[in-house]
Amino acid sequence: MAFTLHGLPVSQGIAIGQVHLVSHALLEVNHYHVPPKHLADELTRLDDALATVQGELIGLKASASSGTSHNEVGAFVDLQLMMLSDPMLIDAARKLIESRRCNTEWALVQQMELVVEQFRQIEDPYLRERQADVVQVVERLVKVLLGHPGHLPPKRRDGLGTVVVAHDLSPADTIGFRDHNISGFVTDVGGPTSHTAIVARSLSIPAVVGLHHIRDLVEDGELIIVDGTRGVAIVDPDETVVQEYRLRRSELELEKSKLNRLKDTRATTLDGENVNLLANIEGPKDLPQVKAVGSDGVGLYRTEFLFIGRDTLPDEDEQYEAYRAVLKAMPSKPVTIRTFDVGADKALNGNQGRNEPNPALGLRAVRYSLAEPKMFMTQLRALLRASAHGRLQIMVPMLAHAHEIDQCLTLIEKAKTELRAEKVKFNEAVPVGGMIEVPAAALSLGMFIRRLSFLSIGTNDLIQYTLAIDRSDESVVHLYDPLHPAVLKLISGTIQAGVRFGVPVSVCGEMAGDPAYTELLLGMGLRNFSMHPAHILGVKQQVLRADVGELAPRVQRILKMDEPARVREAVERLGS
Amino acid sequence: MAFTLHGLPVSQGIAIGQVHLVSHALLEVNHYHVPPKHLADELTRLDDALATVQGELIGLKASASSGTSHNEVGAFVDLQLMMLSDPMLIDAARKLIESRRCNTEWALVQQMELVVEQFRQIEDPYLRERQADVVQVVERLVKVLLGHPGHLPPKRRDGLGTVVVAHDLSPADTIGFRDHNISGFVTDVGGPTSHTAIVARSLSIPAVVGLHHIRDLVEDGELIIVDGTRGVAIVDPDETVVQEYRLRRSELELEKSKLNRLKDTRATTLDGENVNLLANIEGPKDLPQVKAVGSDGVGLYRTEFLFIGRDTLPDEDEQYEAYRAVLKAMPSKPVTIRTFDVGADKALNGNQGRNEPNPALGLRAVRYSLAEPKMFMTQLRALLRASAHGRLQIMVPMLAHAHEIDQCLTLIEKAKTELRAEKVKFNEAVPVGGMIEVPAAALSLGMFIRRLSFLSIGTNDLIQYTLAIDRSDESVVHLYDPLHPAVLKLISGTIQAGVRFGVPVSVCGEMAGDPAYTELLLGMGLRNFSMHPAHILGVKQQVLRADVGELAPRVQRILKMDEPARVREAVERLGS
Repeated sequence: MAFTLHGLPVSQGIAIGQVHLVSHALLEVNHYHVPPKHLADELTRLDDALATVQGELIGLKASASSGTSHNEVGAFVDLQLMMLSDPMLIDAARKLIESRRCNTEWALVQQMELVVEQFRQIEDPYLRERQADVVQVVERLVKVLLGHPGHLPPKRRDGLGTVVVAHDLSPADTIGFRDHNISGFVTDVGGPTSHTAIVARSLSIPAVVGLHHIRDLVEDGELIIVDGTRGVAIVDPDETVVQEYRLRRSELELEKSKLNRLKDTRATTLDGENVNLLANIEGPKDLPQVKAVGSDGVGLYRTEFLFIGRDTLPDEDEQYEAYRAVLKAMPSKPVTIRTFDVGADKALNGNQGRNEPNPALGLRAVRYSLAEPKMFMTQLRALLRASAHGRLQIMVPMLAHAHEIDQCLTLIEKAKTELRAEKVKFNEAVPVGGMIEVPAAALSLGMFIRRLSFLSIGTNDLIQYTLAIDRSDESVVHLYDPLHPAVLKLISGTIQAGVRFGVPVSVCGEMAGDPAYTELLLGMGLRNFSMHPAHILGVKQQVLRADVGELAPRVQRILKMDEPARVREAVERLGS
Repeated sequence: MAFTLHGLPVSQGIAIGQVHLVSHALLEVNHYHVPPKHLADELTRLDDALATVQGELIGLKASASSGTSHNEVGAFVDLQLMMLSDPMLIDAARKLIESRRCNTEWALVQQMELVVEQFRQIEDPYLRERQADVVQVVERLVKVLLGHPGHLPPKRRDGLGTVVVAHDLSPADTIGFRDHNISGFVTDVGGPTSHTAIVARSLSIPAVVGLHHIRDLVEDGELIIVDGTRGVAIVDPDETVVQEYRLRRSELELEKSKLNRLKDTRATTLDGENVNLLANIEGPKDLPQVKAVGSDGVGLYRTEFLFIGRDTLPDEDEQYEAYRAVLKAMPSKPVTIRTFDVGADKALNGNQGRNEPNPALGLRAVRYSLAEPKMFMTQLRALLRASAHGRLQIMVPMLAHAHEIDQCLTLIEKAKTELRAEKVKFNEAVPVGGMIEVPAAALSLGMFIRRLSFLSIGTNDLIQYTLAIDRSDESVVHLYDPLHPAVLKLISGTIQAGVRFGVPVSVCGEMAGDPAYTELLLGMGLRNFSMHPAHILGVKQQVLRADVGELAPRVQRILKMDEPARVREAVERLGS
C-alpha cells in the first residue's frame, strides 16, 4: 500500500526507481571479549581493516578527481582519511582491545560514540554534521571487519532507475554509485550540509534526507518516488501517481536543459536593468561550479572554512594562497572575501570553545576578530597581499556599532602601512564593506554608509535576530519567516539607502538564491544577488522574465502592508 | 598605601568605615577519614550541625518578619531551610560519611561542589545565582562544625561605621548585622540578584560585589570607602579622599531625604503632564516596598517566579491566590500581570531543560506557553478569576508574529467561555496587552495595535536582540548600548505609534528606572514608566523637574542623529 514520508529536500529533481537497501553494519555489531591468547590477532584485524579502508578511500579520491563533477568529494575523503589516524578514535579503540579485551568492532563503536558525542556539542552546524563522517568511517571499517561486500547495486537493464535507501551514506558509498544508474538517494539521517546532500547535488541526483526510519519501512525492489524538490518519498505508489511524477520529471528536465542554455546569457530584466548574479563559495574547491554556471563574480567567500576543523591556524602565506587562487581564477570579476566568521560557537582547535550561554549572541565574527587582533591582522595582511591579483573586496561580518567599523578600518590601515614598509604590493584602494545582518545595523545605515564602500545583507542572520529565533532549534523553526513585515522593512530599507547614497548593496543570504523571492528583491531595487552557484541559473531565469518598472510599485505596496497573510499572498502574486 | 578596586555596584550610597573581615570557613576544611568506631559520632555531628543551623535560620526568619524592610529576606531563609533537607546535598553527604568514612565537613563540601556544578549549568541568571545559597548554607554548617563564633562585629562607639568584607554573605550573616552599625558590604563574589545585593538594597546599605580577591587584599581595621553607586572600593584612602567622600555622602543623604518627601507627590512635569510611575514586582512579597514609595500601580508582575525553583507546577488556585493578593493590596490601581516567561533556559523542574544551542533565541515566553497550552490555560483561568478583584491587565511576553497574538486571544476566549459555563466571576473586558521586546514587533506595530489593548516595551531584551548580544555574556557585555541609534529608533517608534493610535505604551525594562534616561523617554512621549520600586522616587524627581514641551523637540533632533558619540553627548545634555 502506498505511503508518503516527509524529509528534508537536499537535492532537487524527481527520481522514480526501485529500492536498493544499503545495509547498516553498525546495527549488526556483536560485543564479546577476546581471549588473551587471541589479542595479537585481534589487533592485526584492526590494522588490516584500517589498511583496507585507507586503500579504498585513496582509490576513491583518485577516481573522484578524474571526474569533473566530483570536486567536492575530495575534501570528504581527506577528512575520512584523517579520521583513520585520529588518536581519539583509533588509538583509543586499540587501547580498549588491549586493556579490556573488547572485540575490534565493539571497541570502534564505543570510541565512535564518544567522539560523536563531542561533535554533537558543537554549535556550528557544519562541524556538528561532521559527526556523520565519524560514523561513516567506522561503519566502513566494521563492514570490512564483518566481511560485508561493497554494496554496489547491479546496473539495471529495464530502464527503471535504482533509488538507494540507507541509514546514511559515506563518500565511499556514493562515489561507487557513479556508474550504476542511480537515480535517487534517500536516507534516515543527514542535513543540508551532510555528505549525502553535497554529493547528491554535485551529481545532480534527487535526494531527500532526514526521513528517520525509512530504511526499516521499505523493502528491496519496491517502487519508490523521490521528490527532491518537495522533500518527499512515496513508497509503492499507484500507477496514476507514477504517471503524474513521470510528467513532472519530464517538465523539470526540459526546464533544466533550458536553464543550462542560460549559462552565457547576461542577467538583464525585460526593461533592460542589468543584474549581477554572484556566487557564495567556501574556497577554491568551489571554483569549477562557479564557472560552470557563468557567475558574475564571487559575492561571498566564507573564509572561516580555512580556520575550522584543524589544530593550527593558517598562517599568512597559506591564507594568501587560498585568496589568490580564487582571484586568479576570476580575472576581471569582483571577488568579495569575508573576514572569518568564527567565535566561541565555532571552536577553532577542536572542542576548546568557551561555554557561552547563547553563542549566537556572543563573541563571534567581527567581535571575535577584534578580540583576537593578531589573528585578524594576519588575515588582513593576507587579504591585502591578494588584492594585487584581482578585484578583491574585503567584507566584515556582524557589524553593529560605529566603533567596530572604525577599529577594523584602523587595523586595515595599520596592515597597509606595514606592507608599504615591507615594499609588498597591494591595491591601495581595496574596497572595504560590511555585512548587514544585525537589526541594529539595518536600522542605523547612515553610520555604515559613511564608513564603508559597499554593504551586503546576510538575510539568514538578519531574520533570526529580528525575530529572535534560532533556526537550528527545532522547537522554534516554524517561527522563521523571511516575509515577516519587519524583515521586509529592514531589507528594503537597506537596499533603498544604498540606491539613495550610491553605495552598492547585495543580498548574500538564502533569500538571494530562492527564485520565489527574486521579483520581490528586484522590486525593492536590488541588483546584486549572491547565492550558492547551484541556484544562479534558476534566479537568472526569473530575472530575464522580470520587468522591474512594473514590479517596483507593486513591491512598494507590499511594504506598506503589515498583515503577514496579505504580504504572503501579494508576494506570491508578484511572479504571476 | 591607598588602592582602588572595581566591582559591581549593587546598592547605592557611600560608606566610610573600618574593615571587618568575615572568615571564609570553607577554605579551612580538612579532609580526613573517620575511624569506623567513630562513624556514629560523626553522623551525630552532622545532625547536630543541621539542627543548630535550622534553629538559627528559623530565628532569623522570625526576627526578619518583625522588621519592615526585611520582607525580601524571608524567601531566602526559606530557600536555605529547604536546602538543609535537600537529599542531593544532605542525604548524599550522609552516605559519603557512612560509606567512604569522609569527615562531615569534607562530605558536605564534596556534595556542595556537585550541586553547585548543576546550578552553574542553568541558563536563567536568577536560578544560576542560587548556587551561592548552596555554598552559604554549607559554609554555615561548616562554621558550626568547626566551632567558629558567629561573626557579628562589635558595635563601634567612635562614630566610624563598620564595612563588612567577605568572600560572600549569607542571610544569616546579613540579618545579624542589622543592629551592629554596619555601613557597607563588599564581597569577592555575587551579582545584582545575589543575596548580598538584595539584602543590601532592602537595608539601604551601600554594597559592591564581584571584587574578586578583596578579602585577601585588606586587613581587619583598615579604613575603606565603599562607593555603591560607582561600584568602587577604596582601601586605605588619603585624608583628602575621605573628606571628599564625606561631602558626597552628605549630599547623597540630603538628596535621599528630599526624595522620601516625594512619596505622596503626584508625578507631574513642570508643564503639567501627568506621568505614571509603576512598579515591577515578582510577587506579593514585594508589596510593602511598592506601597512605601507610593507607586501608581504594578506595571509588570513577573509570574515566572511562581513557577521556577520547585518540583510541581502551581495549580490554578495557588496562582489565583498569588494574583488576587496583589490586586487586593492595590485597590483601584492598575496591575499588569505578565504570563510566565519561562522556557528551556529557565528549567521548571530542576535541571530538565532541553539542550538548546541558543536558549535566548529558543522556546521561551509566549512560544513556550503556546507549546504547553494546558499549563497556559491554567494560568489564563487563574488570571481571569483574579480579574474580578481589581484592575487587572494581562500581558503576553516575547510576541513577534500576528498568529501568536491570535492564538493567545483565542485561548483567553476559551478560558472565558469555560468560566462563564462554570458561573465563575471575572472581568469580561480585561485588557490584554503585549510586550514589545523582539525587534520584529517594534517594526510591525500595526499588527500589534490592531489586536491588543496596550503595549509595554521590554528594553532589556529589545536591546539585546537588536544588537545581537547577550548581556550575561562577559565577552560582549561592552557592546550593550541603550543609546544605540537603532535602539532609540525602535523605542521612540513604539511610543509614537501608541500616541498616534491611542494605545497606552509603557516601558518596563531597566531604562525606565534609570534617571539618566527619564528626560529622553519623556521627550519621546512616554507617560508610563515601570521599574523596580527602589527607583521610583529618583525617577519621580526627574519628572518633576522636566518640561516635556521643551524636551520633545530636542529629543526629535536626537532621534535624527546616527553617530553614537553625538547621540550620547546630546542625551547627557538633556538633563542640564
